[in-house]
Order: sequence, then structure tokens, then C-alpha cells
Amino acid sequence: MISLSRRSAVEPFHAMDLLAGATRLRQAGHPVISMAVGQPGAPAPQAALLAAREALEHGRIGYTDALGTLDLRRKLAGHYRARHGIDLDPARIAVTTGSSAGFNLAFLGLFEPGDAVAIARPGYPAYRNILKALGLVVVEVPVNAGTAFTLTPESLMAAERERGVTLKGVLLASPANPTGTVTGRAQLKALLDHCSDRQITMISDEIYHGLTFAGEETSALELTDDVIVINSFSKYYCMTGWRIGWMVLPDYLVRPIECLAQSLYISPPELSQIAAAAALAATDELEIYKASCRANRDFLERRLPELGLPLLSPVDGAFYAYADVSAHTNDSMEFARRMLAEIHVAATPGIDFDPVEGHRAMRFSYAGTMAEMVEATDRIGHWLNGSDR
Amino acid sequence: MISLSRRSAVEPFHAMDLLAGATRLRQAGHPVISMAVGQPGAPAPQAALLAAREALEHGRIGYTDALGTLDLRRKLAGHYRARHGIDLDPARIAVTTGSSAGFNLAFLGLFEPGDAVAIARPGYPAYRNILKALGLVVVEVPVNAGTAFTLTPESLMAAERERGVTLKGVLLASPANPTGTVTGRAQLKALLDHCSDRQITMISDEIYHGLTFAGEETSALELTDDVIVINSFSKYYCMTGWRIGWMVLPDYLVRPIECLAQSLYISPPELSQIAAAAALAATDELEIYKASCRANRDFLERRLPELGLPLLSPVDGAFYAYADVSAHTNDSMEFARRMLAEIHVAATPGIDFDPVEGHRAMRFSYAGTMAEMVEATDRIGHWLNGSDR
Repeated sequence: MISLSRRSAVEPFHAMDLLAGATRLRQAGHPVISMAVGQPGAPAPQAALLAAREALEHGRIGYTDALGTLDLRRKLAGHYRARHGIDLDPARIAVTTGSSAGFNLAFLGLFEPGDAVAIARPGYPAYRNILKALGLVVVEVPVNAGTAFTLTPESLMAAERERGVTLKGVLLASPANPTGTVTGRAQLKALLDHCSDRQITMISDEIYHGLTFAGEETSALELTDDVIVINSFSKYYCMTGWRIGWMVLPDYLVRPIECLAQSLYISPPELSQIAAAAALAATDELEIYKASCRANRDFLERRLPELGLPLLSPVDGAFYAYADVSAHTNDSMEFARRMLAEIHVAATPGIDFDPVEGHRAMRFSYAGTMAEMVEATDRIGHWLNGSDR
Repeated sequence: MISLSRRSAVEPFHAMDLLAGATRLRQAGHPVISMAVGQPGAPAPQAALLAAREALEHGRIGYTDALGTLDLRRKLAGHYRARHGIDLDPARIAVTTGSSAGFNLAFLGLFEPGDAVAIARPGYPAYRNILKALGLVVVEVPVNAGTAFTLTPESLMAAERERGVTLKGVLLASPANPTGTVTGRAQLKALLDHCSDRQITMISDEIYHGLTFAGEETSALELTDDVIVINSFSKYYCMTGWRIGWMVLPDYLVRPIECLAQSLYISPPELSQIAAAAALAATDELEIYKASCRANRDFLERRLPELGLPLLSPVDGAFYAYADVSAHTNDSMEFARRMLAEIHVAATPGIDFDPVEGHRAMRFSYAGTMAEMVEATDRIGHWLNGSDR
């Protein structure tokens, strides 16, 4: 019998377990609505699908350079020029196998085992799990109305005092998952300055860029070059299953990250790179998807509180509503399982995002269609209240 | 300025650097032949391309379950039934984002930092680099004519004595890269028994299965369930750039590996899973590719020694010829760079595979076409000898 390592004893990513449960129910013929994972209801843009189809007809799908094709890296540089007014050397852009690879490469490349890295609580559970598996000390910093739902220099310093650690890294997502928080330019600058003063490495997770409905969307690259930016085609570009993302690195980090990527990933999937390069130009179609998310957001912002599920944070960006379920349960995992089993609506228990207070929260993804939002909330209304009000 | 972690200071994967160099030269219009990476000259099977095209037309490409689609896992179980006569629960199969993800998940899931893991020298450099990045102690065990070019109980014990370590893991590839060694059933059984007796976890890298030209191709699963098998669609199935592979796990390891995979990879690329499921049935087409590899192998086995590049090991499987270049250089890296710059033939320096003796070796991949083999060896002949003899 083979034994397991202690470090591999990470928590499950409950959203993925819910997805697997939803898949099983759907295969058994049940009308499942999934609000469990951040999966856009729209397919990849037509231009991306077309580019992929053409590549399948005319080309061979092979390894690319470990940091991605020059074409995609150049087009990503163009994206920063057009969208953020930043002139970026394409050599600083590393194409990755989803943002997942970006996080793994950043954590391995920047931190020693035992280093302390701050993340927001509630926050994306894979951060916590990857950091733990790599032997890093996860410092979960609570975000709430008092911190405008983001990390602040003060909250970081308080966490250092409380945990008795000196931070080596800080990871901030804006827009954030699950809170939807959009960290403004001034807040972001204050955080970057604080990190720079204290030799703390800042990682800016910008994978929900493009999906900001309130507040100002700022790339950390507008403020400094000494930052690691992680992004992805999964969300705004509707390309989850393609597993394609990118990092922007300070020039002196490119080669070490390339060496790690060569061995850990060989290369990102080529077909996805071809499709992604085309997706960057599909703004008209993508803005239609964004508008559908905004409509879903406006609907849920009104509807969830009506159902006795008040929102825990402003729904400013990304495509998640983080709701308080304490009127109905003190065990969000059991609540999520029951909701899936009884009314075939999958959503993610708060404990995925917040081990301390998440037992009383649920995250509802509004990445899907309005019809799904309406049907899901109708089912939830009947289920919780015996009616749809 | 952001500082790097010590553990990220891994060696480059020189083959990938050579690939990048070859890409640059090709983009500048030079007639480059790449024998640097294990990239099949054939495209993915027609059935796989067709399945992918259909999915692009009719479906949406999204996240799948973290361990892959049930369809692909079932078809892989069918593959083991048909090819190896093994009845395997599909639940024991984890679909991964290339074998690269399989190695990373296995190393993280099975070993603590500081654990000693044996690999063959010469061997696949990404093993060494991933193990190092994850804080494991790499024990390189020399393989040579005296060990039939494979790992043996005796060579493992000798390495333990010499390094003063107790092994926690052993990783064996058969067919092997770069030596082409096919480890026979009796040798494999001896190794598995040795590992089982000593609580050493055995990882069997079977990604070159299907490409055996001499000797018997045995899956470790024919001999035991207490083994981690890693495999991929990149080689025999000609699907490198699709980044899709799989692991077979003892049943008690499935859930912990699933939890790690959820956070580290989310899910393998869906389109690649759809194409891979179709590729499993494309035996006729794939056997044609295998036959072309055999022809290339027979050609290089004769031709390389004629050019003053004698073979260092039998060319029994995979698609690599590992040749002695000591008549021409004492620095295989410089030799590889010069060969690429001067005659536009990319091949991989032995130091990628063997930090001790690789300075006098080169690996030539014969995964490409016969025309490439002929042209490349003609260029090498003129370059080394001033003629093609």
C-alpha cells in the first residue's frame, strides 16, 4: 500500500465536487442548473472557433515554445496597449495553461517553503490549496465592509502581527472571487507601494478583468513593472475548457519562469493559443456576453435578497453573488448538497472560500444565461419558502 | 526588484530551448529540421481531428470533472482490457493535462520535501527539474550496458549506499527516453517486487507505449495494482500540442489526487479529451505512423554510426537515437548550438539527460518523416566529414 504525503492533504475544491455531482445527475437525465463554477454560458467567440477549425483542417497541433507562440504574445502586448495604454515588450508575456499554471509557476518561482503569503478571506480556494501543497504558509486576511472588501496595508500589517509572520508575498484578485470586489486605482496603488517598501512580492490576479460592472478596473501594470500579473481567457473570453491564460512578468523573471515552465508544462495547448489569439479581437461579441452578465447581476442583486438570501458583499465585478444563507442553515456544504439533490441547482458552499465564516454563505455564479438565473431562483424560492417570493 | 526562490533555479530543458531557437530560425526563413523534441511527424489521427471539429461546431468547450470525462475514462479502461487483458475500474483513471501534470501530481501527492526518488541517468530532464522544484532529493542512478540500460534492484541499492539515502520512490520509463530501452517483463517484476518489499513507491512512465520495436512491452499494471502508471496521448497517438494524458492509480489514491488536481489544474482541456477518446480507436492509422518510426529507426541505426556517431544504447523503443559525439566534441551543448546555427538541424545535447556524461552525447529524435531523417543526416555528414559518408 502506497502512502500519501502530508502536503497532499489539501481540502477538496468543493465547487469542482459540486460540478462532478451535477454531471452525474445530468447524465442520469435530471434538469440540473449549475451555478457552481465560473463557467460562462456563452461559447468561445465565433472568431476563436473559426480559427481553431481552420487550424484543425490545415495544420498540425504540436508543442509550441514553452512560453507560447510569438503571435499570441504580440497580440497580448497589443491588448495592453489598446486597453490600458501600456507599452509592453511581448517577451515579458508568458502564455500559460490556464491561470492555474500561472499561479503554480509564480508560487514555485518566487517563494521558498515556509514563506508567508497573504490572500483574502473569503477568496479563491485554489490559491490556498496550491500554496499549502507547495509548503508555503497561507495567511488568510479577512476582508469585509471595514476594509472595503479588499486587502489594505493596515489589514496586512494586522495579519502579520496576529500570525507573528513577515509576509513575503501578497495575492490580490480584482475583480475578486467570490466577493465581486473591484479594488480601485488608489487602493491598488497604496497596496503596491506598501509591498514595494517592505520587499513583499505582489501578485495581481486579473482574470476577471473585462467583467467590471461598478468601480474602476485597473491593471497593476499601469502602476508598476515590479509585479506579477496573472490573467486568463477563461472568463471574459468564455474559454474555460481551453485551459489558456497568461502572465506578465518583470523582465528579469522571464527566463527563470521559462525554465520552470519547460519542465512542468512543456508548452501550453497550441490549438487554444490559436483560438485565443483570435478571441482578443472579438470585442463586439464579448461585450454582448458581458451585457448578459450585467443583466444577470442586476436580476440576482434584487432576487436573492427577496428569497431571504441577502448579499454579503457588493456585486461589482466577476460573475458571482456571495449570499448570506444563515437564515436557512449553519452548514453551507450540507445546504449545497441538499439543494443539488432536491431541486437540482448546483451552487458553491461558502466554506470553499472562507474556512472561518463560510458555513453561513453560498456563492452563486451568474456566468450562465438569464433563463437559468430565473429558473434557478424560482426553484430556490419554492424550496426555501414554499413559494417563489 | 522581486527576488527568486532558490528552488526555482532549475536547469533549462535544453530541448525546449533548441525548439525555441529552431522556431526563430524558421520564422526568419531558414530550412530548419528539428530532431530536438519528441514531436511526431504525423498529425493527430483523422478520427481525433474529426471529433474535435464536430465538437467545435455543435458544442461548448467547458470545464470537465477534474479527473476528466467519464467517456474518456471508460474508453481508457477499454484500452487496458483490449491491449493488456486487464480489467480496470474507470474510476482509477485520472485524465491529466499531459503526462507533465501526471508527474507533478504524483510527486506532490506521494512524497514529502526531502524524500529521495531514483531516476535513471541518462533520463528525461523534466523528472529531475520537477522533483527539484518540489524539494525532493533526486537520486540519479546510472544505467549502462552493465544494467541492460535499465534500473535494477542492485543499482538502486548501490545508489542508496553511495548517496547515504533510503529511497522513497523510483521512477522508471519503458520505453525510455533518451536511451530507447525497453524493460522486459521479468526485469520489471524484479523491480516492482524490490520496491514492494522496501515500501518504495514505484511510478511507471509508459508514455512511449505503442512505440516498441524490440523486446516486450509490459504495463506495470499487468503485475500489480500498487503502482502509479503515467501515460499520454502525445507520442504514439501523435497529440503533443493537445496536452492530454492520464494516470492509473490505486483506488485509495484517487480522491487525494483528485483534490490536488481540482486546485492545480481545474480540469484537463475538454476538446483534447474529446479528440483523445476518438484517437484510442484509430489503431490502423497509428500503426502506419509506428511503421514510419520503425523505418526511421532502422535508417538512423545504420546511418548515424556511418557518420562517426555511434549509438550509446540499443534503439529498441520510443523514437530517440542516443549517439556518442565524443569524436567531434567534448561539449554537446555547444555542438547542438553550432549544428543548429550552421546547418539548421536541431537535436538535443546529452547534458539535458545526463549531467555527468552527457557532454559527449546527443539525442536525435526520429519522430519526424523519413525525408527529414535523410536530409538531416546528409547535412550532418557534410558538416562533420566534408562529405555525406
